[in-house]
Amino acid sequence: MNIDMIEAAAKRLEGHARKTPLLSSPFLDDIAGRRVFVKPECLQHTGSFKFRGGWSALSALDPETRARGVIAFSSGNHAQGVAYAAAQHGAPAVIVMPSDAPKLKIENTRALGAEVVLYDRATEDRDALGATLAAERGLTLIKPFDEPQVIAGQGTAGLEIADQAAGHGITKAEVLIPCGGGGLTSGVALALEKHAPDMVARPCEPVGFDDVKRSIASGHIERNPRLTGSICDAIITPQPGDMTFPIMQRLCGNGIAVSDEDCLRAMALAFLRLKIVIEPGGAAALAAVLFHGDEIETDTVIAIASGGNVDPAMFIKALQDFA
Amino acid sequence: MNIDMIEAAAKRLEGHARKTPLLSSPFLDDIAGRRVFVKPECLQHTGSFKFRGGWSALSALDPETRARGVIAFSSGNHAQGVAYAAAQHGAPAVIVMPSDAPKLKIENTRALGAEVVLYDRATEDRDALGATLAAERGLTLIKPFDEPQVIAGQGTAGLEIADQAAGHGITKAEVLIPCGGGGLTSGVALALEKHAPDMVARPCEPVGFDDVKRSIASGHIERNPRLTGSICDAIITPQPGDMTFPIMQRLCGNGIAVSDEDCLRAMALAFLRLKIVIEPGGAAALAAVLFHGDEIETDTVIAIASGGNVDPAMFIKALQDFA
Repeated sequence: MNIDMIEAAAKRLEGHARKTPLLSSPFLDDIAGRRVFVKPECLQHTGSFKFRGGWSALSALDPETRARGVIAFSSGNHAQGVAYAAAQHGAPAVIVMPSDAPKLKIENTRALGAEVVLYDRATEDRDALGATLAAERGLTLIKPFDEPQVIAGQGTAGLEIADQAAGHGITKAEVLIPCGGGGLTSGVALALEKHAPDMVARPCEPVGFDDVKRSIASGHIERNPRLTGSICDAIITPQPGDMTFPIMQRLCGNGIAVSDEDCLRAMALAFLRLKIVIEPGGAAALAAVLFHGDEIETDTVIAIASGGNVDPAMFIKALQDFA
Repeated sequence: MNIDMIEAAAKRLEGHARKTPLLSSPFLDDIAGRRVFVKPECLQHTGSFKFRGGWSALSALDPETRARGVIAFSSGNHAQGVAYAAAQHGAPAVIVMPSDAPKLKIENTRALGAEVVLYDRATEDRDALGATLAAERGLTLIKPFDEPQVIAGQGTAGLEIADQAAGHGITKAEVLIPCGGGGLTSGVALALEKHAPDMVARPCEPVGFDDVKRSIASGHIERNPRLTGSICDAIITPQPGDMTFPIMQRLCGNGIAVSDEDCLRAMALAFLRLKIVIEPGGAAALAAVLFHGDEIETDTVIAIASGGNVDPAMFIKALQDFA
């Protein structure tokens, strides 16, 4: 996994993934007490940065392998990113989801062209089911983060940040990133290492699910004690990836942990001041710069808003409580 | 008023106004039965395209005149666009608003650096008050639409549409535009005339407030019978401008009238599928392509989402009823 792969992925994504802009508002600068830019990956195809990794992985396959199709385990943003990237490549995609996944997510994934295979969490083994399907059909597994071409795709967001920030005359900044398994964080960190060496990537996670923060602090992979109990579902994973962790350990600054309420407040402020829709987990980095400024050192911060796939009810709650 | 002024404004706006992207979603294409692109001017500085016109007008003033300051009558998007453009130019801005304007809009305009002068709608003459202030302080009036440099600024959105659509291989399309006084519509129409001659601009208005549609149909300026009774406040004006109307008459296709409910539905779909926040009036063009397809001829439509300054309560209503 290296910067060459990210640069190669950027070429493959050209004209397919969106170059999301850098947004800002004087009102957010006031709250943060520093200059804040937001990279709205919620505006990416399928509503999250995951399309970058999906496209990168699909486009890196040799045509024959790709034509047999891909498989992914996900009920969330990775599923939609892979499904849409596969459809755009004319490749079959099988997405394996628990049968109790929200109906809307199942329908959306199907509407994006994927075959959704449901399994019963209580009685079926997801990995065994997936392995059987993959073997029978010759499908290639696209892992959500611990996969070089996926990390390479996510890293293209970092190339854009370096380039766009330079356009604003900014070379020194902390880049705050909502962090689950670390695919986006490690990819962006690698991109910044070469293209914006005075920027540092910092993972942002929910309080109580800050496995990456604790792993970076201790120097080895730490697990989350539980996997439920936060509204930031998009960035809850058991532990950092075997491939992403060493990259984050080498390149990232300390992690920042934010509360669910921080995220809801950040969602309301993004609605009011930036006119974008962010999901709770996607708001973790914006929440960190707005409400945890004492943990930040640079005058300028770039926060990635990593996704916008939020249920209307949750968004309404954010507006009712904090807008 | 001509294309050269729009091209000159684009140079002045470079690096100051945002180049908003073109967004799309296969889900919106399905609903519309054609290819739909959305130009999200809600992501522009101050949350609407009005910043373009404000910046264009401020930057076109000679430095001495500009240093004395500008004045605008508005309680809405034009106020914020002018206020912020003036602040960025280091020029004083006086915004005259009715004293019963929403407190949040007054506060926002002040926070953007303007001096807000309130008047009593019942007892004071706004124009006389403004004229006195302008004379005393040497302020330059920035009119909301019937002003060449304002039209030139709004027209820069049309230059971007022509360029971005060409990047997608699209040269033929109807360009649907939420239309109040016609500053954005006429500016975009002029830009398309030269840079995308196979595209046609079409104004979109609320049912019952379709003065531009009726004026284009009859060939002379028609007035709205009333000015209240629609949630699309941003695009309700008494009649098309003396300067904007002849341009629209010459260049635009027929107008399209949409209901308040159409706009709320479009807002909910923009939330779900594009992750952007649109205000009711700003959603008129998206509503037209989604729900009035029988009035549209081209396979591809580009809809401008002109602004996103919507109260949380109204946005919640859109989500509760239609998301």
